[in-house]
Amino acid sequence: MDQIKIFAPATVANVSCGFDVLGFALDTIGDEMHIRKSDKKGITITKIVGEDLPYDAKKNVVGAAGYALLDALNSDAGFEIDIYKKIKPGSGIGSSAASAAGTVFAINKLLGNPFNNTELVRFAMEGERLACGSAIADNVSAALFGGFTLVRSYAPLDIIKINTPNQLYATVIHPQIEIKTADARRVLKDTVPLKDAIKQWGNVGGLISGLYTEDYGLISRSLHDYVAEPFRSVLIPGFDLVKQKSIEAGALGCGISGSGPSIFALSKGLENAQKVADAMKEVYKNIGIDFYVYVSKINTEGVKIIS
Amino acid sequence: MDQIKIFAPATVANVSCGFDVLGFALDTIGDEMHIRKSDKKGITITKIVGEDLPYDAKKNVVGAAGYALLDALNSDAGFEIDIYKKIKPGSGIGSSAASAAGTVFAINKLLGNPFNNTELVRFAMEGERLACGSAIADNVSAALFGGFTLVRSYAPLDIIKINTPNQLYATVIHPQIEIKTADARRVLKDTVPLKDAIKQWGNVGGLISGLYTEDYGLISRSLHDYVAEPFRSVLIPGFDLVKQKSIEAGALGCGISGSGPSIFALSKGLENAQKVADAMKEVYKNIGIDFYVYVSKINTEGVKIIS
Repeated sequence: MDQIKIFAPATVANVSCGFDVLGFALDTIGDEMHIRKSDKKGITITKIVGEDLPYDAKKNVVGAAGYALLDALNSDAGFEIDIYKKIKPGSGIGSSAASAAGTVFAINKLLGNPFNNTELVRFAMEGERLACGSAIADNVSAALFGGFTLVRSYAPLDIIKINTPNQLYATVIHPQIEIKTADARRVLKDTVPLKDAIKQWGNVGGLISGLYTEDYGLISRSLHDYVAEPFRSVLIPGFDLVKQKSIEAGALGCGISGSGPSIFALSKGLENAQKVADAMKEVYKNIGIDFYVYVSKINTEGVKIIS
Repeated sequence: MDQIKIFAPATVANVSCGFDVLGFALDTIGDEMHIRKSDKKGITITKIVGEDLPYDAKKNVVGAAGYALLDALNSDAGFEIDIYKKIKPGSGIGSSAASAAGTVFAINKLLGNPFNNTELVRFAMEGERLACGSAIADNVSAALFGGFTLVRSYAPLDIIKINTPNQLYATVIHPQIEIKTADARRVLKDTVPLKDAIKQWGNVGGLISGLYTEDYGLISRSLHDYVAEPFRSVLIPGFDLVKQKSIEAGALGCGISGSGPSIFALSKGLENAQKVADAMKEVYKNIGIDFYVYVSKINTEGVKIIS
């Protein structure tokens, strides 16, 4: 195999209760990447369509992730990469994670799968380090493993793929405002009141239990965030109303996707997810902020080979 | 049915990572209680064997829990209760919880089951309020539901029964020292560093995932406590050595049972659990502290009718 075309999914991190540890992958929005073996050592970005991002591989998450993999092998292999960027950088649905995850997935395939998924997460995290200054694993794990993923531990890195109920659909709205991940981190406190932390891990336990037992009611009751949402939601105009209208429209829960500004909701069934999308759109139409909306089944495969 | 004899299990709360939310029930240690309908209104404690506890029902957890149930029904029914106390008060394996859970289970049965398990937990929590000043739910939930239980939320009360892998055994050692629950609470901090809280809920997620998928390795990797053990373990002489020797003997994990002084370990298989018991005993023999040791399959039924 000399070349590969892949789909690298957008992802929702945190999932309300699971700050820095939970994520899931989407099916209807993601980047496309074409990766070819090349005689020129290292990573060469040959095309970027859709966004204005650096061609210098050392300054692009694609290079940061790809070189982390190649360096681990002491490899002098070469790859050309075309990037068809569909996920907006700064959207909060794992734009950098998709590029990083797609790159390491594809290179690993072209090299005959020397690494497992958890090892690929480690390389993709180097893309995240370049993109946001912190080697977070929640988005890249969801992008590589697919479905719901838990980053149980960072040291050692331990990624657990959680069962995904079949009727679970996501609605994501991306209001066209900018929140930098670094800013979204800065509004958080360094400490959590113990009583809030207890509620948070009670809900992590509830959500994971609900995912395994496919108990949509329990999933719904567990989708609360006492740690990030109270501080970050004020950075997103319209958040409270979007959340209220989504729940009224039948969503199981609604929260900030990653560090925002995108807002996600989970619903049982496609029809509910579409009603939630309509409710979300209505809010931003009234406020007068442009937006993109995505409705998607949970992607349970992660990065996919297109051809 | 006019009378009932029940077994009310000892329980291990917190289970390392799940401070205030997780618990499990034991099979080989618990109280026995005989409860009879009586013409005398209210709760009369007619016998207490094994421990020196108050016969005045208003001052005994049995009365606090039982009257909470009767008051909710506006009932003028009467019950006589004989308590055969096998679990030492102050042991950290849910002595008051067993008495409270056993009482409400038995009265509920004798009244024709007006309440479900979660409602019974709420009444039993009144026993905990009397015993330790705080209406905690982790021990009483495990005692009433059996198996591993998650207190997802206190308000509203939401108890989830988690799958219990068949080969999971507990070893518990109760060193004969006294730690008051109130003191054990006082050494804890009011706030948790966010980075530790993230590790804690990552492990809650990992443990619950491991329980559902019966992945003993994942259960083992998840049994860590960054919140209570670092502060409380210093109150238990020999704790660090017991933990080290238990792990060396093959335990999946080891931690403080509830607020101590009992120490629990989980193991795969009875044989391993017995090896862990031997390793624990050896430590306290060398230190010169008396102890009781229990090896038990996880009790998946909770309070049981004996006859």
